[in-house]
Amino acid sequence: MTGRPLTYRDAGVDIERKVRATRAALGAIRQTFTPNVLSDIGLFGGLFRVDPSWKEPVLVATTDGVGTKLKVALLAGRHDTVGIDLVNHCVNDALVQGARPLFFLDYIGMGRVEEGVIRSLLEGCAAACRANGCALIGGETAELPELYPAGEYDLVGFLVGVVERARIVDGSGVRAGDRLLGVPSSGLHTNGYSLARKIVFDRLGLSVSSRVDRLGTTVGEALLRTHLSYLPAVGPLLDAGVPIRGMAHITGGGLLDNLPRILPKGLRARVLKGSWPIPELFAWLVSAGDVPEEERYRVFNMGIGLVLVLPPEALPRARSILREGGFESHEIGEIVPGEGGVELLQP
Amino acid sequence: MTGRPLTYRDAGVDIERKVRATRAALGAIRQTFTPNVLSDIGLFGGLFRVDPSWKEPVLVATTDGVGTKLKVALLAGRHDTVGIDLVNHCVNDALVQGARPLFFLDYIGMGRVEEGVIRSLLEGCAAACRANGCALIGGETAELPELYPAGEYDLVGFLVGVVERARIVDGSGVRAGDRLLGVPSSGLHTNGYSLARKIVFDRLGLSVSSRVDRLGTTVGEALLRTHLSYLPAVGPLLDAGVPIRGMAHITGGGLLDNLPRILPKGLRARVLKGSWPIPELFAWLVSAGDVPEEERYRVFNMGIGLVLVLPPEALPRARSILREGGFESHEIGEIVPGEGGVELLQP
Repeated sequence: MTGRPLTYRDAGVDIERKVRATRAALGAIRQTFTPNVLSDIGLFGGLFRVDPSWKEPVLVATTDGVGTKLKVALLAGRHDTVGIDLVNHCVNDALVQGARPLFFLDYIGMGRVEEGVIRSLLEGCAAACRANGCALIGGETAELPELYPAGEYDLVGFLVGVVERARIVDGSGVRAGDRLLGVPSSGLHTNGYSLARKIVFDRLGLSVSSRVDRLGTTVGEALLRTHLSYLPAVGPLLDAGVPIRGMAHITGGGLLDNLPRILPKGLRARVLKGSWPIPELFAWLVSAGDVPEEERYRVFNMGIGLVLVLPPEALPRARSILREGGFESHEIGEIVPGEGGVELLQP
Repeated sequence: MTGRPLTYRDAGVDIERKVRATRAALGAIRQTFTPNVLSDIGLFGGLFRVDPSWKEPVLVATTDGVGTKLKVALLAGRHDTVGIDLVNHCVNDALVQGARPLFFLDYIGMGRVEEGVIRSLLEGCAAACRANGCALIGGETAELPELYPAGEYDLVGFLVGVVERARIVDGSGVRAGDRLLGVPSSGLHTNGYSLARKIVFDRLGLSVSSRVDRLGTTVGEALLRTHLSYLPAVGPLLDAGVPIRGMAHITGGGLLDNLPRILPKGLRARVLKGSWPIPELFAWLVSAGDVPEEERYRVFNMGIGLVLVLPPEALPRARSILREGGFESHEIGEIVPGEGGVELLQP
């Protein structure tokens, strides 16, 4: 029962250092505030006004993490990109229901507060929030000695968007004969990193600084390329009234698991392999890892980050609006009657 | 470049097991759905209608984790209570701005999917959501081999509540002379576990199953007692129009760091030690750990989980409404002019 007095700092928790780290990013965070933000940082919750201009607003809420892409960031000692990945991932998850982002909150769990890392993570989140017109209205940084090994962290995001009830996109309008329009990804986005790391670091024995001629860059650069936000692609389509019947964000589970999420009963998706160019990064990974054919399309996005389901007659206009916004697109398949799921056709 | 084919499962990720684990909790999750939930589980985002009966709705969003209370749950092999802690913590963070909970999302990060653990975590979240009239409309379970050690996990929650703009409680109406009314906590709630564990397990050498006569229970039971939701305490006060000028949820940072969050400039809080009974759990911890006087009120809630700031004339009515709802309350101090912060007065 005796011994020297114990404090929180003895237990590995330093609240002041945490406060200091967050304060460093406050400027960037405040720059994300939109006119509907009614609170500053520091209250128990962030306050966000539901704009009265919305007629029948429906909130779309989503949460995600960055996965083991974080491990690559740690290896590369680079923490300013994963916040962008996280925000853009969440923006896309709301967007595929037709929603525009309103606000975002972050959670950082780490073993020991590292001020520079926290600042980079928060500034990454703030930069992406700002680019998406989304307010960063709250967050939590938890110093959890013993739960997270020193130096390690997890980064989690929560986003709320809004869509008019009459304009919700949920796949219920998808019909046989509709076409699948794929919009390219920038790389792995935030999925498949456990396998990619095994291939690159274990099997090939490379490091983040290894240059891969085939990719024209280093392993670190290629693997850390940020997750795209499809808001600048889809926003103009929604504004123009293009009849989008369904949208799938190609995340964990790839085309094979994500397309079925928006298919009504009695319909399946037929995806034609070879109908879009497989980016060099994926070709390299699947050959080095000898990844089985079907597994490739479940673990990786294979170059397609977003799929739009459109009636055939809407295709030309959609593609032209996407092109004007700087987005390529590929007709990668169609909707056919049948049991749910995805059929991968050889070209 | 050669070797046997690599799959996601080889990399330690088993998507099917994860899906199965979530499916087991679906029944409990669906029971939380309120009439404004427009989506089922499985879409990219959860859909929640803004009820048209709200005049000038303001959303209050908050995120938190359970902290190293998770370590105690792991030691005790008991995973059905931390979800309750998490939801109630988030409910309180929204509540202290005057907001009632609308919906909640969870994030579980773990090294290796353990179906039973995920199910318990989700069912705990669902039970607490239901008790608080809050819909559990989404979540993410991330299997992150190498980021989390096997068996370990982090659990994060995100909650959105709503308050009429005219009824936001943010402390701006706090005046000198107002009284501090403390509502008891049930135990540590979710804060101070790094220090508590150090005291109990390292210094005292106890285990979760050790019985502590002074507490009349085991270490595990005492430390896992769930975080209270103050919605049943505060809801009736708000309904009755009691003029609450500020509310502070006493979480990480204790009375000393949380009360200042709601104080207008030029005012400080004077808290009278001895004005409420210190629960045996705290008395035991701070004496065994020889925790310095001020540190106690920063690391632990010391028996007060919520503080209401009220004009003196509202005190009797507030206390009587709380009593009717089964909540004790203690007048623990007052607001005085002066530099921001909290003054702890000896009795």
